[in-house]
Amino acid sequence: MSDKPKEISQDGSFKRQTNRFTTPFGKKEEHLPVEAGRYRLLWSPACPWAHRAVIVRKVLGLEDAISLGSTSPMRPNIDRVDWEFSLDEKNLDPELGIQYVSEVYYKADPDYSGRPTVPVMVDTTTNKAVNNDYFNLTNYYEVEWSDHHKDNAPDLYPEELREEIDEWSDAIFHDINNGVYKCGFAHSQEAYEAAFDTLFARLDELEERLSNQRFMHGDFITDTDVRLYTTLARFDAAYYNGFNTNRNLIREMPNLWGYARDLYQTEGFGDTTDFDSIKRHYHVSITINPDKAETNILPKGPDLAPWEESHDRERLSSSTDKFRR
Amino acid sequence: MSDKPKEISQDGSFKRQTNRFTTPFGKKEEHLPVEAGRYRLLWSPACPWAHRAVIVRKVLGLEDAISLGSTSPMRPNIDRVDWEFSLDEKNLDPELGIQYVSEVYYKADPDYSGRPTVPVMVDTTTNKAVNNDYFNLTNYYEVEWSDHHKDNAPDLYPEELREEIDEWSDAIFHDINNGVYKCGFAHSQEAYEAAFDTLFARLDELEERLSNQRFMHGDFITDTDVRLYTTLARFDAAYYNGFNTNRNLIREMPNLWGYARDLYQTEGFGDTTDFDSIKRHYHVSITINPDKAETNILPKGPDLAPWEESHDRERLSSSTDKFRR
Repeated sequence: MSDKPKEISQDGSFKRQTNRFTTPFGKKEEHLPVEAGRYRLLWSPACPWAHRAVIVRKVLGLEDAISLGSTSPMRPNIDRVDWEFSLDEKNLDPELGIQYVSEVYYKADPDYSGRPTVPVMVDTTTNKAVNNDYFNLTNYYEVEWSDHHKDNAPDLYPEELREEIDEWSDAIFHDINNGVYKCGFAHSQEAYEAAFDTLFARLDELEERLSNQRFMHGDFITDTDVRLYTTLARFDAAYYNGFNTNRNLIREMPNLWGYARDLYQTEGFGDTTDFDSIKRHYHVSITINPDKAETNILPKGPDLAPWEESHDRERLSSSTDKFRR
Repeated sequence: MSDKPKEISQDGSFKRQTNRFTTPFGKKEEHLPVEAGRYRLLWSPACPWAHRAVIVRKVLGLEDAISLGSTSPMRPNIDRVDWEFSLDEKNLDPELGIQYVSEVYYKADPDYSGRPTVPVMVDTTTNKAVNNDYFNLTNYYEVEWSDHHKDNAPDLYPEELREEIDEWSDAIFHDINNGVYKCGFAHSQEAYEAAFDTLFARLDELEERLSNQRFMHGDFITDTDVRLYTTLARFDAAYYNGFNTNRNLIREMPNLWGYARDLYQTEGFGDTTDFDSIKRHYHVSITINPDKAETNILPKGPDLAPWEESHDRERLSSSTDKFRR
């Protein structure tokens, strides 16, 4: 008999649930049709998985083609692991008219029993969740949605790099993006320490890799950088404290820290990074930190001003543009 | 009607209880008599208030005159804010034969209703607590216990500096030693932020002060340095995470960090600093972090090896000895 919560294995390690709605966007009959104005992306600025979709949407200029609904960083209450539109008037998403993200999941599948997650793409002709596949969503935006990109939009997923990008996506997912959650949600010391060691070994590797190249694949920002950025942006402000990932701060790793600031200072990255929401979610939201819920203290640190400081990473690139157009 | 816990004011701020047993050591009839072999000091390596007494006891060579009983860093259970001799055989202090520190408090005062705290000096002729006045205890060791100091013991409380030392003791107590607790135990955002601002303003002041002098009062270690050290040693390993004192780490403040290492590498300081106990107490002990009690995860970080690194602070002193003998 298991007395472990959902998503916690018998050995105490965190096993993230699989995604329920994974039909790809595309041109075949069995695909979700690509159609400007039809879908609404739901996110919360707190969530790193949703953040990557919002960055790519902005960098590629998909804002007019795909609308955006924003939920609060705070869970509705301790018994409800849901996302709520409590920042909107009457607590309702103005386009879908729903209060909770779970509503589009139940509309699509009345028997849905997982956590309702963001990002989720909602078909506004039915108000049903049609895709919550955060792992592939940015790639759909990059490839299948290319007809709707802005003029001169960058290529974040160049064909000749896709194999390499996909390999890094896997590594970054397991060791870093989800690695911090494996640290924070571990229910055994052994599972926590294994995740901690894997996480910092990978960060050490990236610190070295980024010592002589500006971005993960050279002179230009790619999908890999988006995936890495969303965890780096949350690391010092949330994970170091909240998830026990405390060997060192990212700002103590000079190459990763310069790299993170370089991206932060790029349109689509910093302007979609909401540190206040991030801190509220990880430090105050009651399902994660029950001990702090009683008093709802929001940590005042860290100092965020250094994110704006110069990073001097241009010296590592032979291009004046950070994007390949 | 107040619904606040003990030691929490209506405005949500933390007000530390006053000490119950404050009779000074001394030569007058109303004083506690100074007598080698009569008293036992009870401490836990986790506790900064007790740590200062243990440092001074060792630096002055009072180990033979005052024996030492050590309690576990872990609270006995969630309902019992006590210190337990669970590291000793049969969970009993080998000299006093007690399991809990509270026993010497109740023996001295059956109606004692405060938290049983360390440090506490116990008269072994009665097994009663006779002094738990951590604020003055090191000064008693330095002055009243001088007949029992080792040969060539340093003067940690020179007469001509006492006024200045006492002023700093007050400032360091309110803003730093107890300041971190005011951050960590605050029950209102306002009380937390006020304590946070006061704490870092004072640390900024000390960072500046220690830029051109080796110790707080110049070339020699004094009682002030002991008081400051015990909080600095716990800052990155415990308070930054556990008490939300997260503007920056001490290791990010070069003068304070060099100063802390300089002291750590001095006999009596580093050899009485038990980072494992400190981390267990603040991160795992259930009365402080109920959310972590469920899983009992001990954070793996921070990296402690840098405490041994060279500090180059000798350049700020004209003396080859860190102590005034």
